[in-house]
Amino acid sequence: MATEVTDGPAAGDANGAAVEKTVTFTAVKPQLFVEYAKVSDAVAFYKSAFGAEEVNRITHPKRKADQELPLLLSVEIKLGSSSILVSDLSEDSTAPGKAVGSGVVFCLETEDIEAAVDQAVKAGAVAEGEISEGEGACCDRRVGKVKDPYGIVWSICTPAKKCVNVEA
Amino acid sequence: MATEVTDGPAAGDANGAAVEKTVTFTAVKPQLFVEYAKVSDAVAFYKSAFGAEEVNRITHPKRKADQELPLLLSVEIKLGSSSILVSDLSEDSTAPGKAVGSGVVFCLETEDIEAAVDQAVKAGAVAEGEISEGEGACCDRRVGKVKDPYGIVWSICTPAKKCVNVEA
Repeated sequence: MATEVTDGPAAGDANGAAVEKTVTFTAVKPQLFVEYAKVSDAVAFYKSAFGAEEVNRITHPKRKADQELPLLLSVEIKLGSSSILVSDLSEDSTAPGKAVGSGVVFCLETEDIEAAVDQAVKAGAVAEGEISEGEGACCDRRVGKVKDPYGIVWSICTPAKKCVNVEA
Repeated sequence: MATEVTDGPAAGDANGAAVEKTVTFTAVKPQLFVEYAKVSDAVAFYKSAFGAEEVNRITHPKRKADQELPLLLSVEIKLGSSSILVSDLSEDSTAPGKAVGSGVVFCLETEDIEAAVDQAVKAGAVAEGEISEGEGACCDRRVGKVKDPYGIVWSICTPAKKCVNVEA
């Protein structure tokens, strides 16, 4: 059956023109997961161990009954010219495991989440769940996730905004 | 951005003595480990999945009897403005584990390995082994390793040189 390709590359159309759309990533940020309520300790460690600078912090909007301060969900630090996210393991479902040191996720920032996820899946990655509004460490932005054939999880997010609850 | 808030209780407390010597890191490069002889496949994947560009490759100097080509030990790719190393798991003793997807090591580049390792250990990291001449993925440069209190391995290396056996 001959098909006429009219306009717009449809997602399921395999025989037409190859999708030439170029996905551009503006940043890659490794996201390290640490034990519950240890983000502050870890950031203090990275400051003194490696001279990291804190550039952004995200706290949980709600304070739990047993907490004196809102839980620190994620802190973005700068090390040299690189950004690294230090995130609370127990509060973020993007964490690849629930053991200490188990997890590093690479956050790729781009405006076109769908195209980026599609491109990765066509190349052999497996989408993990649906594209959703991220919460917590991803600071309420859209996020899609793929696992690559080598076991690494890539979180594809819209670019980080400076959060309202920045301290420092 | 005009305001610098310096409210006291937030991040750290003042119990640690300030480290006077400043160690400067020029780059942070996450190093991903993939199965034996899969570096080439993985790099091809990252090119098609994320538009990565290859910037450097290191092959094993000796060809094994059953190999048609020298083993590809490590490839540095660029993704956005970030560098990532994709390395052969079985040939590199810096790999934190021997399972697929088990390992990400963060390579910190600096000229003063000793000072950097000292500073990290003073801050609470544990040195892993001695500072040595790195081989393989680290391209014959000096390397020290520390594990931080959160399970992440940091490899502290002299800056990467462009290797002789680059194929562009």
